[in-house]
Parts: sequence; C-alpha cells; structure tokens
Amino acid sequence: MPRVQYIRLVLAYEGTRYIGWQNQPTGPSVQVMLEEAFEKLTGRKVHARVAGRTDSGVHALGQVVCFPNLSRHEPEVMAKALNGLLPEDIVVRSIEPVSPDFDVRGDVCGKHYRYTIFNEPARPLFERHFCWHLRRRLDVEAMSCAATCLVGEHDFAAFRASGCTSAHPIRTIDRIVWRDEPPLLLLDVWGRAFLKQMVRNIVGTFVEIGRGRMRPEEMAMVLESRDRRRAGQTAPARGLCLMKVYYDLEEYRRAVAGVGKDR
Amino acid sequence: MPRVQYIRLVLAYEGTRYIGWQNQPTGPSVQVMLEEAFEKLTGRKVHARVAGRTDSGVHALGQVVCFPNLSRHEPEVMAKALNGLLPEDIVVRSIEPVSPDFDVRGDVCGKHYRYTIFNEPARPLFERHFCWHLRRRLDVEAMSCAATCLVGEHDFAAFRASGCTSAHPIRTIDRIVWRDEPPLLLLDVWGRAFLKQMVRNIVGTFVEIGRGRMRPEEMAMVLESRDRRRAGQTAPARGLCLMKVYYDLEEYRRAVAGVGKDR
Repeated sequence: MPRVQYIRLVLAYEGTRYIGWQNQPTGPSVQVMLEEAFEKLTGRKVHARVAGRTDSGVHALGQVVCFPNLSRHEPEVMAKALNGLLPEDIVVRSIEPVSPDFDVRGDVCGKHYRYTIFNEPARPLFERHFCWHLRRRLDVEAMSCAATCLVGEHDFAAFRASGCTSAHPIRTIDRIVWRDEPPLLLLDVWGRAFLKQMVRNIVGTFVEIGRGRMRPEEMAMVLESRDRRRAGQTAPARGLCLMKVYYDLEEYRRAVAGVGKDR
Repeated sequence: MPRVQYIRLVLAYEGTRYIGWQNQPTGPSVQVMLEEAFEKLTGRKVHARVAGRTDSGVHALGQVVCFPNLSRHEPEVMAKALNGLLPEDIVVRSIEPVSPDFDVRGDVCGKHYRYTIFNEPARPLFERHFCWHLRRRLDVEAMSCAATCLVGEHDFAAFRASGCTSAHPIRTIDRIVWRDEPPLLLLDVWGRAFLKQMVRNIVGTFVEIGRGRMRPEEMAMVLESRDRRRAGQTAPARGLCLMKVYYDLEEYRRAVAGVGKDR
C-alpha cells in the first residue's frame, strides 16, 4: 500500500456568510464547504487542518489548509476541480504536495493580518463587506504613534476575548503599521500567533485614540493594565483579513523588515 | 410661491441585482430605489433624470442624477438621509444645488467608463461581482496596439447592440487605454456619448485579439465593416463601470490628455 500523500492549499474566502473557519452547529463554516467539495471530488471524507482558525465574518486571502490527498488527481487539476465545486465566496489559490511531516499549525513562523477602515462620510460601496465604516476622520498620526508600544513580546491580556482558550496571553508582535490610502485606513500586523480577537480589540483601542477620546500614550497603559475593560470595543469582524501565513523564516523576516513584495 | 430648486446627485451603485438604471416591469431598477427613498424622505413623488442609463448588471461610481428638490433639507443633510434610506448597494456620494437650466444629459461633455478583466487561472474573490474572469493570459500588447484605430470620430455600427435606439451610429472616442495591473486588466475609455453596449462589444473584440484569434489590425477592419457579426461577443455587464460624468470641459480635456487625478 502506497504512503498517503499530503497537500497544502492556499485558500481565499469572504467570511460574510460563514460562522468562521471551524465546523459549528450554529451555521455554515468554511471548513465544511471545503471538506464537502473534497468529498464530492474523491468520494472520501477528510479532515482539513488549518493554519489559523478565523472567527465568524473574518476574511482570508492567504489561509493555509492541509489534508491527506485521497485522490489520484495532480495538484493543479485538483485546484481547478475544487474551484468548480466550491461556492463563489471560497477560492483555492494554489495546491502543492507536502511531506507527511509538515505541521500546518506548528510550522507557522509568522502571520500577516490586515484591518481595513473606510474613513469617509459617504457609505462604502464595493468595499462594504470588507471594512469598518467610520464617517469622521481619524487622527492617523496619533494612531501610528500609539502603535510603537505594541511591538515586541508582551502580555496581551488586555486585548484578549473572554472566550480565549490559549494557555497564556504572552504574544509577540513583530511589526504593526498604519497606512493612509484615502478613503481607506489600513492596519497591517505581523506576528507568529495571536490571541482570540486580539487584532480587533487592538483596532478598537486605536480608534478611541484616532477619535481623540484617548491619548496615544494610553495604548501602553492599557497594555500594561492587562485589563480588557480598559481597551476599546472589539472592531467588527468584516474589516479583518488573514493576508498570509509564512512557513519560510527568511521570507517572514523580509516582510517584517518591510522589504520585498509583502510590504 | 418660491422657485423650485434643483439638485444634482453623484451616485455609486453595484448593478448586480438591478435591471439597470431605468424603471422596467421585469425587475428592480436603481431609479425606482432612488425615487422611493426620496419619496420616503419628502412625502413627494419625483422623476429622477440621469446622465447616462446603465444596462442591467452594469455598475457606477460616478453616475449623475438630477431632480427638483421638493424638500426643505440642505444638500448635505439630504445626502445623509438618503443614504440611510437606500439599500447598501446604492450610495449617494454627494449632492449639490444646480440652476434650473442645468440639463443632466445635454450638458455632459464627457464620460469615463472602465472595463475590468480578472486574468488569472484561479477565480476572483473580492472582485468577483466587478470583473470578467478569463483564465488564460491575454496578449495586452496586441490589445493596446488594436486600441489606437478606435480613437476619433467613427461610425461604430459594428459595435452597436441590436436594440440600440440612437438616431445614428457616429460617435467619438477621445481616449482608450489598457492598463496591466495583475491580476487585473483595465480598459479605460473616454468619450462624450456611447451607443448601447458599445464598450462591451469593443471589449469582446479586444479579447478575441488578446486570445490570438484575431490580429490587432483586424480591429480597424471590423470598425470599417460596420457589421456587428464581425465583432466579438458582448463582454459581460459585471465588468463595466461608469466611473465619471464630466460637465466641466477643462476637467474633461485634462482627463483625455492623461493629466490630473483622472488618469
């Protein structure tokens, strides 16, 4: 009997109508859509493992998923066939074979998340499912100033959702930067791992600063307090997107240094 | 009795679920949505006049609409109120008062349309409602080469839809340019007026050239033939967007010259 081959998929999805990545009884998940498409294609049930579970409504352009290849299809043929079976809000961007030793979660060396704010009085149109709409102009300079204290290894308990199941709240942010591209404000964050809703809770606190309700220095005070009640509201899920998962440390270091194509 | 004031709205909409701009018995139109919102706001029925009717499924970022202001609201308040009443796929971008002499159709000095092709094997995700997906790489150089013969005043009968009600098929294209922004290919066209489905029929012919099924020189031959059967298929509506309507001749000339912000 031949050894089972494993494949790694890069997946993009619009999270709007899903309960999140993971299967749950309360609604359709991205995972179930992918597993069903795979079953239709091969006649076999598989369990898809994922680099990072995304919450309900959160999008992905570069999610990574791994499962045993129980079909005889070549990766390229399989990508095309899966895209024909998946709904239009889930897209397989690429498939490649991986070693059975590959650990889709454990081998991650970094992740890049982006949060998008639409910062203009009129409502967004084409961007409406992918942004948080805030009519009044935010102070981007103050928000950029507040970002610096978050870089490095910290106890992020102040930005941790109540249902978070992580063993401890220590995480490292390697790079965090605001970009002003009117009418959009983009927050790009790189780190190896994140607590539940950590990016969205940080964004909610940034917005308090951008509105002038908190001073830039207060970001450090919230962080040090380890008190969730001192941070801002949880920013809406629809503004968040998992842009990329890194498995190559050199590539991740270049992204963190701000060089190469993943600026 | 005071004189009726007129207002000019700049409107953006996603055409996906509409039968087009104009009211028709076969489905919901953008016009009916706007007129209903206005009636809810003011208690009065109005007839909205438009710069350019868009077909079913075609989008707009800069459509212009004019009607009598039968409310006592200031333009800015009215824009906000209308946006609160309109569905999420229609957005009022701005409102300003205009003279009763303003002719929303007759005073147009130019229009800018954009056609978007998503040119990559994998399906588009966030762009899926706003592009024509063509998997195989098109020859952009050949398409750019074919574009030159379309500039100027011509008889565009070869690119005219069968149901076109225009008095004659003579139109002028002032500028037409392909841009390669992977995975997108964008065609920007400027002209004062267009025949029914003219841009989409031109795009369909460009794609024949981009696929290598027609030579670049054949665009001029199709144009001169005045024969619709010699042109390519009508490109899908979802790739087309009315970007801007110009009422200021100087601003339009700058756009055609490729200077200023409307490149």
